Amino acid sequence: MLPELIAIRRQIHQNPELSNHETATSRLVFEFLEKCGLSPEYIFENVGVTALIRGGQPGKTIAYRADMDALPLDEKTGLDFTSQNPGCMHACGHDIHTTVLLGAAKVLSQNKSRLKGNVRLIFQGGEENFTGAKRAITKGVLLDPPVNFILAMHTWPDLPAGTVGLKKGAMMASSSNVSFEITGSGGHAAHPHRSIDPVLVSAYTMTAIQSIIARNIAPVDSAVITFGKLTAGTASNVIPSTARAEGTVRTLSVETDRRIEEKLRLIVENQAASFGATGELTFQKVCGPVINHTPVIEVLEQSGKQSIGSENLRWLETPSMGSEDFSFYLEKVPGALIRLGTANQEEQSRLPLHNSGILFDENSIKTGVLFMAQGIVDLLLQL
Amino acid sequence: MLPELIAIRRQIHQNPELSNHETATSRLVFEFLEKCGLSPEYIFENVGVTALIRGGQPGKTIAYRADMDALPLDEKTGLDFTSQNPGCMHACGHDIHTTVLLGAAKVLSQNKSRLKGNVRLIFQGGEENFTGAKRAITKGVLLDPPVNFILAMHTWPDLPAGTVGLKKGAMMASSSNVSFEITGSGGHAAHPHRSIDPVLVSAYTMTAIQSIIARNIAPVDSAVITFGKLTAGTASNVIPSTARAEGTVRTLSVETDRRIEEKLRLIVENQAASFGATGELTFQKVCGPVINHTPVIEVLEQSGKQSIGSENLRWLETPSMGSEDFSFYLEKVPGALIRLGTANQEEQSRLPLHNSGILFDENSIKTGVLFMAQGIVDLLLQL
Amino acid sequence: MLPELIAIRRQIHQNPELSNHETATSRLVFEFLEKCGLSPEYIFENVGVTALIRGGQPGKTIAYRADMDALPLDEKTGLDFTSQNPGCMHACGHDIHTTVLLGAAKVLSQNKSRLKGNVRLIFQGGEENFTGAKRAITKGVLLDPPVNFILAMHTWPDLPAGTVGLKKGAMMASSSNVSFEITGSGGHAAHPHRSIDPVLVSAYTMTAIQSIIARNIAPVDSAVITFGKLTAGTASNVIPSTARAEGTVRTLSVETDRRIEEKLRLIVENQAASFGATGELTFQKVCGPVINHTPVIEVLEQSGKQSIGSENLRWLETPSMGSEDFSFYLEKVPGALIRLGTANQEEQSRLPLHNSGILFDENSIKTGVLFMAQGIVDLLLQL
Amino acid sequence: MLPELIAIRRQIHQNPELSNHETATSRLVFEFLEKCGLSPEYIFENVGVTALIRGGQPGKTIAYRADMDALPLDEKTGLDFTSQNPGCMHACGHDIHTTVLLGAAKVLSQNKSRLKGNVRLIFQGGEENFTGAKRAITKGVLLDPPVNFILAMHTWPDLPAGTVGLKKGAMMASSSNVSFEITGSGGHAAHPHRSIDPVLVSAYTMTAIQSIIARNIAPVDSAVITFGKLTAGTASNVIPSTARAEGTVRTLSVETDRRIEEKLRLIVENQAASFGATGELTFQKVCGPVINHTPVIEVLEQSGKQSIGSENLRWLETPSMGSEDFSFYLEKVPGALIRLGTANQEEQSRLPLHNSGILFDENSIKTGVLFMAQGIVDLLLQL
Repeated sequence: MLPELIAIRRQIHQNPELSNHETATSRLVFEFLEKCGLSPEYIFENVGVTALIRGGQPGKTIAYRADMDALPLDEKTGLDFTSQNPGCMHACGHDIHTTVLLGAAKVLSQNKSRLKGNVRLIFQGGEENFTGAKRAITKGVLLDPPVNFILAMHTWPDLPAGTVGLKKGAMMASSSNVSFEITGSGGHAAHPHRSIDPVLVSAYTMTAIQSIIARNIAPVDSAVITFGKLTAGTASNVIPSTARAEGTVRTLSVETDRRIEEKLRLIVENQAASFGATGELTFQKVCGPVINHTPVIEVLEQSGKQSIGSENLRWLETPSMGSEDFSFYLEKVPGALIRLGTANQEEQSRLPLHNSGILFDENSIKTGVLFMAQGIVDLLLQL
Repeated sequence: MLPELIAIRRQIHQNPELSNHETATSRLVFEFLEKCGLSPEYIFENVGVTALIRGGQPGKTIAYRADMDALPLDEKTGLDFTSQNPGCMHACGHDIHTTVLLGAAKVLSQNKSRLKGNVRLIFQGGEENFTGAKRAITKGVLLDPPVNFILAMHTWPDLPAGTVGLKKGAMMASSSNVSFEITGSGGHAAHPHRSIDPVLVSAYTMTAIQSIIARNIAPVDSAVITFGKLTAGTASNVIPSTARAEGTVRTLSVETDRRIEEKLRLIVENQAASFGATGELTFQKVCGPVINHTPVIEVLEQSGKQSIGSENLRWLETPSMGSEDFSFYLEKVPGALIRLGTANQEEQSRLPLHNSGILFDENSIKTGVLFMAQGIVDLLLQL
Repeated sequence: MLPELIAIRRQIHQNPELSNHETATSRLVFEFLEKCGLSPEYIFENVGVTALIRGGQPGKTIAYRADMDALPLDEKTGLDFTSQNPGCMHACGHDIHTTVLLGAAKVLSQNKSRLKGNVRLIFQGGEENFTGAKRAITKGVLLDPPVNFILAMHTWPDLPAGTVGLKKGAMMASSSNVSFEITGSGGHAAHPHRSIDPVLVSAYTMTAIQSIIARNIAPVDSAVITFGKLTAGTASNVIPSTARAEGTVRTLSVETDRRIEEKLRLIVENQAASFGATGELTFQKVCGPVINHTPVIEVLEQSGKQSIGSENLRWLETPSMGSEDFSFYLEKVPGALIRLGTANQEEQSRLPLHNSGILFDENSIKTGVLFMAQGIVDLLLQL
Repeated sequence: MLPELIAIRRQIHQNPELSNHETATSRLVFEFLEKCGLSPEYIFENVGVTALIRGGQPGKTIAYRADMDALPLDEKTGLDFTSQNPGCMHACGHDIHTTVLLGAAKVLSQNKSRLKGNVRLIFQGGEENFTGAKRAITKGVLLDPPVNFILAMHTWPDLPAGTVGLKKGAMMASSSNVSFEITGSGGHAAHPHRSIDPVLVSAYTMTAIQSIIARNIAPVDSAVITFGKLTAGTASNVIPSTARAEGTVRTLSVETDRRIEEKLRLIVENQAASFGATGELTFQKVCGPVINHTPVIEVLEQSGKQSIGSENLRWLETPSMGSEDFSFYLEKVPGALIRLGTANQEEQSRLPLHNSGILFDENSIKTGVLFMAQGIVDLLLQL
């Protein structure tokens, strides 16, 4: 089956599609699933595909989700099957994710009589812009029959192809958009005492914010507050009336996210008040953290020892501070995101994700299919 | 003579010209001076006029400068003789300045036989953009014969028409353009430890700069450091590689200016170094402070008691933190800038300079001519 | 009379007394005034002396106050008549002040028939600890007859002996004691997230306070906020629950004092709130500013031209940021503090006040007596 | 054997001894080991005991260390066998540690013929002041025969009695003493421009230091910088010449420790330079981090499943930011520190370590002996 899957992966790679425009990929998936004897459905018009594999025995339902969208990059890999769409490239491995799920779908549907329960396949678009998971959930992918656990697999250039990376608990970070605006009172640069200078207030606020990570978050917890943008004023000799900063917050738990929002609000409002200005914080969740469910990981560990060998199971020591819209599913049902090693001897295979030169070892596809198909079988049996 | 001067003032007011484009005003001045029997010359092509009144007795030479340019504002005074040039208005009283100098020129040239020395008349363009004084000096207005002292008179809506404001020592502030740029090393918002965040460094730098005025400048001295503009980054989730602030520095002495530049450089460079970044300060003089020469003021005080009455002399308690390109002349020869009261019962006459609705009481013209003509006579006699 | 006055000054200098313990000096003064034919009274038990010179003609009453206390210093001048009291020295010139007032008292009482009004003499103790003026006022020294104006003279090593320094308006600064205490919540150094760290809050507060002088006080106004003491915590590895700072505030007007108190309170309370702590400001007036009454100075200027010559009158450009309890009298009646030059060729005479090696030129006594006696005569005539 | 061990534990608990004065405890240990047929030796005069159990078969040598010192606290447990030494209490469970090691020593020496290798017993004093481990190493406890691995067990009130807590990798934090001193130039509070104010510099430095944890340490790493003490100045109205802060740094790796030291030095020196002051950092290691050796933990996990049951093995999710002088041994040989659960139904048993009311469930002794004795047997067999 591997040659077939590699061919599919290359076809997807060569024809990448941006978030929420994955129509060709969706059609390819749709037709493959039909050939597997399944009854696929589009999730949202022609974007996104879902199908159910009903097992021979009654049991729980496990969902397995793959994301399908590419990134707005010009591919620089030098591959034969390089992207045909300028400004669009599968640099985050979603082509591999889709292919592995197709492979698992084929294996599982061929063996569905032996499944103790059902498998919900979710081929999702729009991951990179954090819209796809929310939309798919709204369309009911977790409902009929109710999904009990959900899995996802993501390529990982820090691990060699052939291996799988596991971690209990915190796996990926939440992401929130944060901004604050300081409103003072503008005036002539030569008469600061007649103004309330928001430039200065924003600077004091920015330094005060450093205390949150340094002093208010447990040292053994992990979080980031970054303000990538600070803008105030338009002329060197005019005190403006507002200053504005925009940033992002990353955490590994909803509690830490709440704590940071609360501390940021306290600082922004009271720093402004310190100087007679007003400060307003805006804190908007982009997505929650990915927290792997320990019992799921424990079953997958045992399962993986059989499917790919214990020498190919790797424990990840630390979470990634990156984010994934897979977290929206985890807010509904427990589950796990698994890392799929994709590195090999070539240096390009160890470039970071989202790099326009990154290569993914295609042997990882086999490892992914074996691990996930067996894992689903075992989870249905044991959980 | 007053009706004639008022007519001239209104003509100038109705036909305002922007900095370095004061050709019509210059022609008007030129022709008036010719009628006074003087031999005027254009300073720079058709902009700016100068003439010498040779006194009947040998003595020193005193220059008297008026500025002639208007501001890029739409006039909103409601006057009959409101500006005919949209986007151009005499809102800083330079029409009055020019008129008073014409009046003084006429009086002094009529009485030149009694003058102990000479009077150099300077009708200067380009004050508002700080180019005119420098240019006029380059053209030699202070040289033939060498000027010993220089005077200027400036309208002042804080004093009533009929009065003149005097001050010894510091009268107006120097002005310098200042900016700093912090160069760090950009990166992904989720991995701050791999970057050097210039947004944060600029914030710490901004707070540190407050210590200069608060701790390094003598409490009885006066200075301002304002950064009206701070810009860093373009995306909330990307740490940029640079941050930049732009501002202005005002002082009342060259020594304080030097001290502030030195302290700013120390802070910008070392704050950046504190965080592994580099900081670069740019400090550019726009103009120096206006410092009135005490002996000149003392003669003018006595002279003014006679010309306008001691009840119409006002001592200004504090300097203005605004700036004037008259300071360029004062770097060459001692002198004084005198305030001419222009307020009356009308509220509009007490609006701040540069306001598009400001009115100037025309009776001030008489006061100005009397005070300055007599003052020049007395200065030539006594200094 | 000068040799007699110099002898008195040396006797006082040799027998200095600390604040509120000026009993021997008071007795000396008391006896001298009796010899002048006056009826002195002790102000408070045996400390402080007051007497009234009733003029021959009806008129206003002018008070003239001298302070008499010494400083807790070991004298290091090398004088023949050096202090006999170890740890006590007239290093602020109060011995001169007392002597000049005695001289003026003698002159004025000898000429009292020609006085148009009365002179209230106030020899006050306890200036250095800011208690004496308050106490003397409570004892009624300004009441019987009601005092219309009050004068004081203070030695000044920045001016040569023979001269007197005048200034209109702000002359010396107000002084207030200020402190703030931050209350957080202590804990183990290794678990900052379980504490609210007041050390850090006090640091942020201290940096925020810099903005007051830098941005909230007019550049042409003068003020100082200094925190000389900051203490927090007792062990390096324990987060304490409080931090405390103590300082002083100097201003030249009551309005500026109020503005600084208000801004400090805003900052202390809101900086603390920024970090979940509480901040409390204490602001206690020590004394107000010394503001010289312009009409008094103008009479004294004319008077001084006659008594000591216009070449010996000096205009002080800036106020001193030091403080004086003479300000308590000025809150009740207008008046002026005059500087008495005491420097000569000797370097020691140009040391700062309160220095244990400072010398005061005794010729200043004559200048002081002449200037003040004549000034009082003229003020009674003209105001 | 448990009743005997409990009696020993109570005897030790009732007779606590402060660091480096554990003579009675050492004698008790010495005599017990003699009764076990071992040849104990004092490590340092009468403080600290070591003995070797030679196994029947050749193999590696595993050390097992217990610490014996108590804390300077007044015990408030209400126990029958409460401390007889006022101001001295076993509030960190070292009495339990010593007892468990005695129990393990007895079990292992009874079964020494079956041991594949040797066991080095180390009863160490002076843990609480971080002197004992260093001293014991100097005395050669790891040398004869060379120790291959070392173990320690520490009580843990967060886990129930009967359980053992395991963790791979970072287990406890390093600790360093850190201080900085800012030297400026003192002066009168009213003339800040003539001084360099170290109070203010220390405040700016303290705020800048927050950026290290917030921005320079990887979010998934853990570290603490706490300055528990900040002192500057003695009088509110005198600018002092120095300010000083003292604190502690905790990290989980030597690399992070180095990075923090480097960043602190950069900040302290350059913040001071920003304001014309000098800053000096002192950074002194107290002890390194405790990093558990993964292969040792993996053998102990399997071994523990047999000795106490897998239901009694707990994986600790996060390291503790506390410190242990056991880390000095780990700098020489690999090993592991294991947590011993001591909580039960009583609330007092869940108080934090070092609390004067804390109770330790004595059933933990049995669990500790079983786990450690079996663990050592298995480690000798498998590593």
